[in-house]
Amino acid sequence: MKFEVTILGSSSATPIFNRNPTAQVLNINEKLYLVDCAEGTQQQMLRFDVKASRIDYIFISHLHGDHYLGLVGLLSSMHLNGRKKPVKLFCPPALKEIIDLQLKYSETTLHYPLEYVFTSDEKPMVILDNQDVTVETIPLDHRITTTGFLFRQKKRQRKLIKEKVEELGIPVPYYTSLKKGRDYEAPDGTIYKNDTLTIDSDAPKSYAYCSDTLYNPRYFAQIAYSDLLYHEATFLNDMLDRAAITHHTTALQAAEVALKTNAGKLIIGHFSARYKTLNELLDEAQSVFPNTELAIEGKTFVISE
Amino acid sequence: MKFEVTILGSSSATPIFNRNPTAQVLNINEKLYLVDCAEGTQQQMLRFDVKASRIDYIFISHLHGDHYLGLVGLLSSMHLNGRKKPVKLFCPPALKEIIDLQLKYSETTLHYPLEYVFTSDEKPMVILDNQDVTVETIPLDHRITTTGFLFRQKKRQRKLIKEKVEELGIPVPYYTSLKKGRDYEAPDGTIYKNDTLTIDSDAPKSYAYCSDTLYNPRYFAQIAYSDLLYHEATFLNDMLDRAAITHHTTALQAAEVALKTNAGKLIIGHFSARYKTLNELLDEAQSVFPNTELAIEGKTFVISE
Repeated sequence: MKFEVTILGSSSATPIFNRNPTAQVLNINEKLYLVDCAEGTQQQMLRFDVKASRIDYIFISHLHGDHYLGLVGLLSSMHLNGRKKPVKLFCPPALKEIIDLQLKYSETTLHYPLEYVFTSDEKPMVILDNQDVTVETIPLDHRITTTGFLFRQKKRQRKLIKEKVEELGIPVPYYTSLKKGRDYEAPDGTIYKNDTLTIDSDAPKSYAYCSDTLYNPRYFAQIAYSDLLYHEATFLNDMLDRAAITHHTTALQAAEVALKTNAGKLIIGHFSARYKTLNELLDEAQSVFPNTELAIEGKTFVISE
Repeated sequence: MKFEVTILGSSSATPIFNRNPTAQVLNINEKLYLVDCAEGTQQQMLRFDVKASRIDYIFISHLHGDHYLGLVGLLSSMHLNGRKKPVKLFCPPALKEIIDLQLKYSETTLHYPLEYVFTSDEKPMVILDNQDVTVETIPLDHRITTTGFLFRQKKRQRKLIKEKVEELGIPVPYYTSLKKGRDYEAPDGTIYKNDTLTIDSDAPKSYAYCSDTLYNPRYFAQIAYSDLLYHEATFLNDMLDRAAITHHTTALQAAEVALKTNAGKLIIGHFSARYKTLNELLDEAQSVFPNTELAIEGKTFVISE
């Protein structure tokens, strides 16, 4: 099952050096999930051919502008483009107040349902559970209420061993039951054990999105063994003091998070406007966790095929 | 005195075909005046090397998202970049409520004064009067309260005829008085008429910005004889019905406004997303008012040198 993430923005705070502030889009089994939506996200979607009409879920980590100021524009464009199907928006409660006020003064009534699921940073919560994925909030430690999001692929059904099933002439209506792990009883009473007819599906994969946060071990257990971890890395470690004051993480610390939580791979992003080039941030992170890559606009990271 | 306008966005409603929604920046005597600020305006400013630190005045015509959704991001970036000097914001009163709410939830206190001057569409009002320019609101006819803005260059002082002034040996302290139009009395009692010592300065120029509006003669008198008129032209005239319903103007109508108000030159913009190319809109407008140009991102129109 396809499970991948494309970076739409990698800058902190302000757009600079051709880097846009934070937004990402996940493709999970051909459905799109938008994670944060900074100003310019619509333009980035046009640039990388991401269709807004295919997005049904939007997740906003917190209410600093560099994570949500593109949202009202995107919601308005969906409206103007004739959208009818719902958008499910996972966000802090105050975002509803902000959106309602802006729609009120533009005298806009959206033509599609905008359904809210409110997040909080009190404890991890499952906020979405559909056929493909569960999503949990990750309570982070930033200046204002902030959650990351943990996407866990659902365990898929077992896969038929096609030659075996056909060789025994098992009728198609039994396939569903086989995929669920049941044995097969042939017309002559012979019992065929399920594991001779099917193989297990791939282990479900997970993606942890840790937007703005201080380095704080309280969220490490929850994100342990993520196949892919996105972690902010606003500064180099020589600015550790500044990271502490602003409740951000350094590249070195992000790599330590990946190491301590046994991540499969690390993506670092949310780069400060002070860094024109990103090599030093990458080098610093790789010195601790070699399997690190930079969040680069337009780049897609495959979590499962 | 420099007086020119650079187009930062020319699209209506949504970003498309590399066109951004509405924003323009005026350079009047080396001070920058931002007019509307759609999403992505910051990115456009980076692209066309417009320094946010040089903007002291921002004008918002109305509260449809395609005219202001880039504002909170821009104000935040100014804050993060250490701005101390005031920004003067001319806008409908509700915008303060929207900005205050967003700053509240991001727990941001701007480090510079944000000074509001509220606009209304009841009647034209002079909202700014400084040494270079006066700015009046132009009450327009859109679905929600909307004003355009009329920028009138101040009449400059008379210019000395240098050779004449030097030939007569007029002392420098008298120059200010001469530039104001006073005659000069020499020590021997001879009176020199001012117009033998100075020439008139250039006629002051004007720029009328008519953002979203229905074609409505009520604003024609106010904008008469603008040296440069920007007028929205969302549709071709075969969509006149749609223009009427949505309170917009067609390219043909925009040209009629220019013709009837004796504009020096017309710029059309705010193009609907249905037009991938703009030639037909230009042709239609030029059939009525030949001196028409398209609002193209990055293009600068000189009003006076």
